[in-house]
Amino acid sequence: MSATNRQIRLAARPVGEVRPEDWEHRSVPVEQPGPGQFAGRTLVISLDPAMRGWLDDRPSYLPPVGLGEVVRAGSVVEVTASNHPDYRPGDHVVGTFGVQEYVVSDGKGAMKADTSLAPPSTYLGALGMPGMTAYFGLLDVGALEDGETVVVSGAAGAVGSLVGQIAKAKGCRVVGIAGGPEKCALLTGELGFDAAIDYRAEDVRKALRREVPDGIDVYFDNVGGDILDAALTRLAMHARVVICGAISQYNNSTPVQGPSHYLTLLVRRARMEGFVVFDYAERYAEAARAIMSWIQDGRIKVKEHVVKGTVDDFPDTLQMLFRGENIGKLVLELT
Amino acid sequence: MSATNRQIRLAARPVGEVRPEDWEHRSVPVEQPGPGQFAGRTLVISLDPAMRGWLDDRPSYLPPVGLGEVVRAGSVVEVTASNHPDYRPGDHVVGTFGVQEYVVSDGKGAMKADTSLAPPSTYLGALGMPGMTAYFGLLDVGALEDGETVVVSGAAGAVGSLVGQIAKAKGCRVVGIAGGPEKCALLTGELGFDAAIDYRAEDVRKALRREVPDGIDVYFDNVGGDILDAALTRLAMHARVVICGAISQYNNSTPVQGPSHYLTLLVRRARMEGFVVFDYAERYAEAARAIMSWIQDGRIKVKEHVVKGTVDDFPDTLQMLFRGENIGKLVLELT
Repeated sequence: MSATNRQIRLAARPVGEVRPEDWEHRSVPVEQPGPGQFAGRTLVISLDPAMRGWLDDRPSYLPPVGLGEVVRAGSVVEVTASNHPDYRPGDHVVGTFGVQEYVVSDGKGAMKADTSLAPPSTYLGALGMPGMTAYFGLLDVGALEDGETVVVSGAAGAVGSLVGQIAKAKGCRVVGIAGGPEKCALLTGELGFDAAIDYRAEDVRKALRREVPDGIDVYFDNVGGDILDAALTRLAMHARVVICGAISQYNNSTPVQGPSHYLTLLVRRARMEGFVVFDYAERYAEAARAIMSWIQDGRIKVKEHVVKGTVDDFPDTLQMLFRGENIGKLVLELT
Repeated sequence: MSATNRQIRLAARPVGEVRPEDWEHRSVPVEQPGPGQFAGRTLVISLDPAMRGWLDDRPSYLPPVGLGEVVRAGSVVEVTASNHPDYRPGDHVVGTFGVQEYVVSDGKGAMKADTSLAPPSTYLGALGMPGMTAYFGLLDVGALEDGETVVVSGAAGAVGSLVGQIAKAKGCRVVGIAGGPEKCALLTGELGFDAAIDYRAEDVRKALRREVPDGIDVYFDNVGGDILDAALTRLAMHARVVICGAISQYNNSTPVQGPSHYLTLLVRRARMEGFVVFDYAERYAEAARAIMSWIQDGRIKVKEHVVKGTVDDFPDTLQMLFRGENIGKLVLELT
């Protein structure tokens, strides 16, 4: 075991896109677990668009990452030593352990990951926060009903790819919006979407007119900006717009672009609603069971984009999200 | 009785603010009622911000007013002759009869107005569409609960003044946003609002921080633009934003200003919802009974801004809405 723990900390508050100097790469001594704690070695680290927001000094649903603190991230660790009654060496544990090689934890907010059922990375994706987000966002916030028409943006991403597949499992017509022919082919091929719109190649508003002539019942938005606006022009009566994220706006140094077509909410008697997945913590087990069963019966194909490297590769890997370079859940696997 | 019927028709589609040449002032022969019809003389005509939208050639919740057609407007008429079983000469009838001196109607969409209970104008205001809009928007769409904190924009207008008073009747804390000291004094004085914010005199965002330190539970928006954006920054958890209108945007010749702070919906797990009052037609009687009882017990003070003139004064009177010159429900009483 290495005697040092490599970490990525927040050195400065980024303005717009994160620059290399906003991160601090630091090595600290590996800690030993105290009473009631366990120690673990990081196997795989989650990369999520929401991370960008956590770096801003703004009140939000979580406190900002403090200057000098280890960057907040979900990860799966393998327990190496334990004074905790629930965890034993060799166990795999998922939690918000931060971007670092070694962790010490009292187990708060952590959960055992049964890696006989799925690999560690899947506990950061389909069986982790993106899965929970897709499930509760679509079914609870979106109040999806069987047979409705669903449009999802960021459709080839961690959350979007699950939203579309869950909607298909519910018997809905599903149109995904994504960037580039490779992602679009994935959506309509392997993932079984009814149609895909390549926002880089065509006008989204026109494409929606073609693909959802009767309007959108549930629009699940991961991107914001012009795509949100285009979707608003195509809402069906009593549509639900689920605001999950706005990756197109996270690196803005200017104000967020507001949806100019929000008055369609009035014309179409529609609603736009935001949510934070943590509010559903008591029901995670329900969602995980449902998603696992869809994985097992083939209705959900798990898409993961695994980058192999060290924690020092975290900053570059994070940028892949904002450049749209990942397909499915992006994770950094420590080698 | 005059042998001619003076009308205001739509001559051209306005771009931005309506110009005098967009209206046609025309005199036509007075018609006689056919079988099943009644004829009436217009007493009072409603002026509503929504009228501006009806002039645009855009799909909306009602078809656009056609070029050359009499301009759509609610009004109260006195029946002068009738072949209709439900109406007799001398009856007062409220309906969408258009901007004209004389009408002939088969009674579709019309309703008798009991002017022994309230004057004709009130059937265009507190007991008419603005009253229905305030009632269902606040209580149904806003899902208002007793004791919550309500903020309403356009608070001295026809709808806003009723929203605030209904919320007070429900035991809520109510803050109104309006333009100018006279309107603000009305809100906190006669109408019993807890506080008023003069958007012309102070920064609305800062003022909201002072007046609703614990956040807004229901924000009822009549104006859009910067005021909507300011309100979004102050939402309480699980807040409801009711989109009733956006008078600040109706005369735009550029795109509508979208709410830049819409991501607060996510942080605050809040929703923004639009509605059209016509959907509640089956429940109008319920709302009218409730509002009438609040008028009678003094909890609702009816504010009306009556301009006396002829139908030729309609264009200038309509502009008063967009200049914020009316207090309460604006009507044109034909003399």
